Amino acid sequence: MSTLQETIHQMGRQARAAAYQLAQLSSDEKNAVLRAMATAIRQRAPELLVANAKDLAVGREKGLSNAMLDRLRLDEARIEAMAAGIDQVATLADPVGTIMDSWERPNGIRIEQVRVPIGTIGIIYESRPNVTADAAALCFKTGNATILRGGSEALHSNLAIAGALAAAGAPDHAIQLIPFTDRESVAVLAGMDQWLDLIIPRGGKGLIETVVSLARMPVIKHYDGICHLYADAAADLEMAVALTVNSKTQKPGVCNALEILLVHRSIAADFLPAVGVALREKQVEIRACPQALEFLTDAMPATEQDWDTEFLELIIAVKIVDSLDEAVAHINAHGSHHTDVIVTRDEAAAERFLRTVDSACVFQNVSSRFADGGEFGFGAEIGISTDKLHARGPMGLRELTSYQYRVRGNGQVKA
Amino acid sequence: MSTLQETIHQMGRQARAAAYQLAQLSSDEKNAVLRAMATAIRQRAPELLVANAKDLAVGREKGLSNAMLDRLRLDEARIEAMAAGIDQVATLADPVGTIMDSWERPNGIRIEQVRVPIGTIGIIYESRPNVTADAAALCFKTGNATILRGGSEALHSNLAIAGALAAAGAPDHAIQLIPFTDRESVAVLAGMDQWLDLIIPRGGKGLIETVVSLARMPVIKHYDGICHLYADAAADLEMAVALTVNSKTQKPGVCNALEILLVHRSIAADFLPAVGVALREKQVEIRACPQALEFLTDAMPATEQDWDTEFLELIIAVKIVDSLDEAVAHINAHGSHHTDVIVTRDEAAAERFLRTVDSACVFQNVSSRFADGGEFGFGAEIGISTDKLHARGPMGLRELTSYQYRVRGNGQVKA
Repeated sequence: MSTLQETIHQMGRQARAAAYQLAQLSSDEKNAVLRAMATAIRQRAPELLVANAKDLAVGREKGLSNAMLDRLRLDEARIEAMAAGIDQVATLADPVGTIMDSWERPNGIRIEQVRVPIGTIGIIYESRPNVTADAAALCFKTGNATILRGGSEALHSNLAIAGALAAAGAPDHAIQLIPFTDRESVAVLAGMDQWLDLIIPRGGKGLIETVVSLARMPVIKHYDGICHLYADAAADLEMAVALTVNSKTQKPGVCNALEILLVHRSIAADFLPAVGVALREKQVEIRACPQALEFLTDAMPATEQDWDTEFLELIIAVKIVDSLDEAVAHINAHGSHHTDVIVTRDEAAAERFLRTVDSACVFQNVSSRFADGGEFGFGAEIGISTDKLHARGPMGLRELTSYQYRVRGNGQVKA
Repeated sequence: MSTLQETIHQMGRQARAAAYQLAQLSSDEKNAVLRAMATAIRQRAPELLVANAKDLAVGREKGLSNAMLDRLRLDEARIEAMAAGIDQVATLADPVGTIMDSWERPNGIRIEQVRVPIGTIGIIYESRPNVTADAAALCFKTGNATILRGGSEALHSNLAIAGALAAAGAPDHAIQLIPFTDRESVAVLAGMDQWLDLIIPRGGKGLIETVVSLARMPVIKHYDGICHLYADAAADLEMAVALTVNSKTQKPGVCNALEILLVHRSIAADFLPAVGVALREKQVEIRACPQALEFLTDAMPATEQDWDTEFLELIIAVKIVDSLDEAVAHINAHGSHHTDVIVTRDEAAAERFLRTVDSACVFQNVSSRFADGGEFGFGAEIGISTDKLHARGPMGLRELTSYQYRVRGNGQVKA
């Protein structure tokens, strides 16, 4: 084994031991540590800024873009936001220990299905150093030990943040940061399924693909959001315009922003000119199918590729469909199974859409921007899963737990 | 792409299309098809026996062991058991469509978390042809399309069974069997995460390891059961003997059979001679730690390897421990996180054991043989998961579903 392998395997062993201690902490004990973590982040703000300045200097030398440097940057406000985020996690209800189900069998054995921590979780992420604190706090709250592996650009910042968190009274090795940032460290982490129960990659498609190819343990993926809004024949046109504009423009760079607008042919002549004006007011570039172009005179023709693209900027692709079923078939074939919206006053049409669209979140008459753990009331989210196993859609604390069957009897034997 | 790749990818595309049809079937429609499947299996019994005779002849030529040939063999009784199993699945409650949770947010949006099928499931298995019918019926009941890939020894039998199932009125391609049995077919199946939402390998450790290494989609694993029984200081000794004997000998070749007996030092002198006699009466070979050997004069010394071994036969390893905590530490370090039992009258000790043993099933005063979907009341099981994500322990119909958030509003936009 190389030094890198030995170090990371050793961290895995330590994480497993820490997980057994964490599983025994009460909610009050965990919350007290979380508040101490928030305090440590605030108190060590000067250190964090010095560490971050090093990362920024290296980044500038390496010629990182301004957008990258901005993502990397810490300032007083961002440090306070990190600390406040941890404090907020301390206020949330702890799912661990909840009895999900319980029943008695005819032979008298009593079965309880109880929420328990998953155990050990690896988080692999890119340039934003605040992920160190966010992910560690959510995993800690749910009694999981965390092994963090951040991007090379943020190494000094991440080490300083993880150091502050780990010094706040958590069991030893409950939160560990891998001090290597090369690709091999991802491969080693993804290969050690004896020590790690789950990996969550937080970052772009390339990172997720790499982890999926390498991982032996379960991976929860947060892929693209190619979100659709379908304006139905029975849509309230004013509402459809408002929801299209809000879903597309309220924050265009995120996964629950709208990318594709589908319009029922019967309302196209009324709806498209109106939505076209509203979108252009917000500087949105419109790419339309040949039939929609007739009603959107300023739009560009859409290419085939546009239907499969997460634009993440002020661009929308617009297509006319002949029926709700055609809209659903288009969404299931071209979407990313994240969030899709129908605007309609026809409850039967809404029901059919919600039941046949194969996406984590299906909405009637609501902006796609509400597909979010905070908006769902989860208090915090570790991401929006595009997987169907274990966690689908916004992932809160509950999705960071597993369960165990606790069975009590009085000597029952199997005949 | 090779012909094999093209064929399997085409099956994947077809499975996805079938899954969308399956998701829309009512429980009654699915149950009617299941009953027709059971009838088809009964009616085609002569064909199944002919196909099975071909497999048996090839198997004999290849020199398969008698145990292997027995696993492969179909007869009237086994065919009837397969049909009856499908009929029984038809009688179970359908989890699809269940509202798991629902709530309203302050802004008036109403959120429902609804159980939906997972979608498309690959099942990779070895020599027993009845898995074809069992797995397909459970997946069909939960609205999932299935791609089956059985072992080469059972190919003719599997094709005949899958043919009977597919001809019983299910949507086209709801149940497909891959006609290839080489290793490449596993690799292709495990690589096509665009078409397959989940893979379940059913078979030995080698098969599971192969699938885990290759799979890009989630895998639910059913690894070993290295199950422990801990006879606590406060154990009812007669109950401890009965549970040890039942857990070890009632069916020694299965994953929930007992392998390791841990005994608190304070009861060793009374308990070990009694359990030794009872085990020897059942022809169990005892391998004991040096201290236990003093009370088990006929036993062999245990080797270090015995503590990590799933014997699956009439062998048990026995170790004396100084405390409950030592027992738990041994179980967490050497067990397979499947099923572990404490025998005690001390409720506080039981509580501590159940809360600190990191296993899917933790039992107080119950035989380990009850770790089973049937015994839990699930009606049927597709296996006992040793994973912690999505499904842990006995997996019934509920664990073959995912969920979706259905959200309804009246035009809410994000500020």
